[in-house]
Amino acid sequence: MASEGKVITCKAAVAWEPNKPLVIEDVEVAPPQAGEVRVKILFTALCHTDAYTWSGKDPEGLFPCILGHEAAGIVESVGEGVTEVQPGDHVIPCYQAECRECKFCKSGKTNLCGKVRAATGVGVMMNDRKSRFSVRGTPIYHFMGTSTFSQYTVVHDVSVAKIDPKAPLEKVCLLGCGVPTGLGAVWNTAKVEAGSTVAVFGLGTVGLAVAEGAKTAGASRIIGIDIDSNKFETAKKFGVTEFVNPKDHDKPIQQVLVDLTDGGVDYSFECIGNVSVMRAALECCHKGWGTSVIVGVAASGQEISTRPFQLVTGRVWKGTAFGGFKSRSQVPWLVDKYMKKEIKVDEYITHNLTLGEINKAFDLMHEGGCLRCVLSAHT
Amino acid sequence: MASEGKVITCKAAVAWEPNKPLVIEDVEVAPPQAGEVRVKILFTALCHTDAYTWSGKDPEGLFPCILGHEAAGIVESVGEGVTEVQPGDHVIPCYQAECRECKFCKSGKTNLCGKVRAATGVGVMMNDRKSRFSVRGTPIYHFMGTSTFSQYTVVHDVSVAKIDPKAPLEKVCLLGCGVPTGLGAVWNTAKVEAGSTVAVFGLGTVGLAVAEGAKTAGASRIIGIDIDSNKFETAKKFGVTEFVNPKDHDKPIQQVLVDLTDGGVDYSFECIGNVSVMRAALECCHKGWGTSVIVGVAASGQEISTRPFQLVTGRVWKGTAFGGFKSRSQVPWLVDKYMKKEIKVDEYITHNLTLGEINKAFDLMHEGGCLRCVLSAHT
Repeated sequence: MASEGKVITCKAAVAWEPNKPLVIEDVEVAPPQAGEVRVKILFTALCHTDAYTWSGKDPEGLFPCILGHEAAGIVESVGEGVTEVQPGDHVIPCYQAECRECKFCKSGKTNLCGKVRAATGVGVMMNDRKSRFSVRGTPIYHFMGTSTFSQYTVVHDVSVAKIDPKAPLEKVCLLGCGVPTGLGAVWNTAKVEAGSTVAVFGLGTVGLAVAEGAKTAGASRIIGIDIDSNKFETAKKFGVTEFVNPKDHDKPIQQVLVDLTDGGVDYSFECIGNVSVMRAALECCHKGWGTSVIVGVAASGQEISTRPFQLVTGRVWKGTAFGGFKSRSQVPWLVDKYMKKEIKVDEYITHNLTLGEINKAFDLMHEGGCLRCVLSAHT
Repeated sequence: MASEGKVITCKAAVAWEPNKPLVIEDVEVAPPQAGEVRVKILFTALCHTDAYTWSGKDPEGLFPCILGHEAAGIVESVGEGVTEVQPGDHVIPCYQAECRECKFCKSGKTNLCGKVRAATGVGVMMNDRKSRFSVRGTPIYHFMGTSTFSQYTVVHDVSVAKIDPKAPLEKVCLLGCGVPTGLGAVWNTAKVEAGSTVAVFGLGTVGLAVAEGAKTAGASRIIGIDIDSNKFETAKKFGVTEFVNPKDHDKPIQQVLVDLTDGGVDYSFECIGNVSVMRAALECCHKGWGTSVIVGVAASGQEISTRPFQLVTGRVWKGTAFGGFKSRSQVPWLVDKYMKKEIKVDEYITHNLTLGEINKAFDLMHEGGCLRCVLSAHT
């Protein structure tokens, strides 16, 4: 391409300071170095982790930065040594890398790749420990190794999944975070079996994806728990069979669920990021075998707690990141499943805006009716 | 037998009040009712759970009671409908019942049987919700459904395992609690694989059994952690390959272990009952897959806590009761393994006393050199 090897100047939403509106800037995006890929982002969605870092509550948040980690685009150019993607490939950036070489990738036990974590965790690229973004000479930090709130971004080659070019990017961008996280929590982390009783705490995108995952796994009861009863109608479409609003009960929610299920649920999923709810999710599990999976991300410094007796009597407490999916290997598989209509994606998209309207999109996120808002980056 | 159907008057150690010396009394033991078994206890060991309830710190502890739950004996008589054991059978009383009929037993997922729990939890027999023990007309509560600090006891038929009559009862009495708990935590709950790195917190009987279980599972490193460095020599015989005394380090013990193992252990076991150590045991596990099993019993009201990030990044927190062994089915199998010299038992017995010397035995338990003290009940 004509732009190959050159700095690209394009639009990006820059978070200059915590909790201040993002500013659409002309950002200079340097060419990819060895092992790096420059991607033209076509569509990006917003996720609560973006909002969390933007809020300033994330002690690891670095500013100024370009947020965004749930997106899809097309490879513009690649750096030296990049073999698995080439310009023109359709891709989904993956905040959870997969190098296939590190101790983690080779363990066969986890999707947490360690290769680029030390760089992405501090907002830079591994090669030179610097950013590829700048605005008027000021370097702008990367975020989660993806920074998709930009028309162009640079990612490590281990952080990009090549997908079916026929897949609609305005839809499958969602397969970069929330939907796989929910599905994988059920399929990979909990391994829910047919006939199971499942509780899902929080009926946002991730919670609904948990419900969908549980439905496809053959769960017989899928109990949705949310303080917004309006969510039940939508949730039914994703597989939720029963709804409980904690506000309708005087008893602790874990007791309500234990009573409702003759001793507790087989599996529970916390999809909010609230440590009190994480405790309730564990304690509503059935003695002897109930497994609770923490999916939500709690605010920094907060802690979970329970009586150890809960575990000694057979409950299991786990967590999941990106649903346990190996990103480069399995995101393309999820895209294929979507193309075969085996998993939902379109149904999570409640709003479509442009990158220039990103602040409005953040506002929408806090409204009950919004699941995912997809931003078009080039219109 | 001549005693069948009659009250037996025999010696038992009665805990009249918390934290007061046990008193050897002439106790009247009623005949077994339907579904019950009267057992002549020949040998009983002491375990920390006995000491915990005796101390008065257990809010569910009921007094006066007859403690004891790690023992072996011979069936004296059986109540109506008891088919699986008969007078003369050699047995080990099992505080964890196995009825093979309840939801728990049939689940295939747990060893926690629910059949008699509602009665044993409050110190009585299920049939008439009364005790079979009395002293001068005063009913004496049962304890854990076993009450083995007595020359005769009555247990539910689902709480007694029939074993090889050739097995030495003065040894295999230990297979009623501590040794199976440690072995099973490794084999059944954690499912440690060959080549694993294992951390064992607390090198008492249960911790040493964990080490032995890990050794037989093929663990490559078995790190023992204890504040008494004198325990290392003994621990080596049970499989511990390295020893760490937290007192020798300024850093938190979890950090010491993470540094020592290039990122953390594959499996850890808390065998003390200390909630701070439970946290350390979780946090010394390797990101991505490390599994921590709570084996020790914490004091009532105490809670475990950690940052949820520990679980979201792939650690798993579990617990175990009686090592996940199905008591009636698997205690005989453990006895057979002992007879074939595949597991140690004799090596845990550091002291032998008589039932009359039980208070001395409790004192010994708090000394570093004591693992198990076996009391002979009829000498």
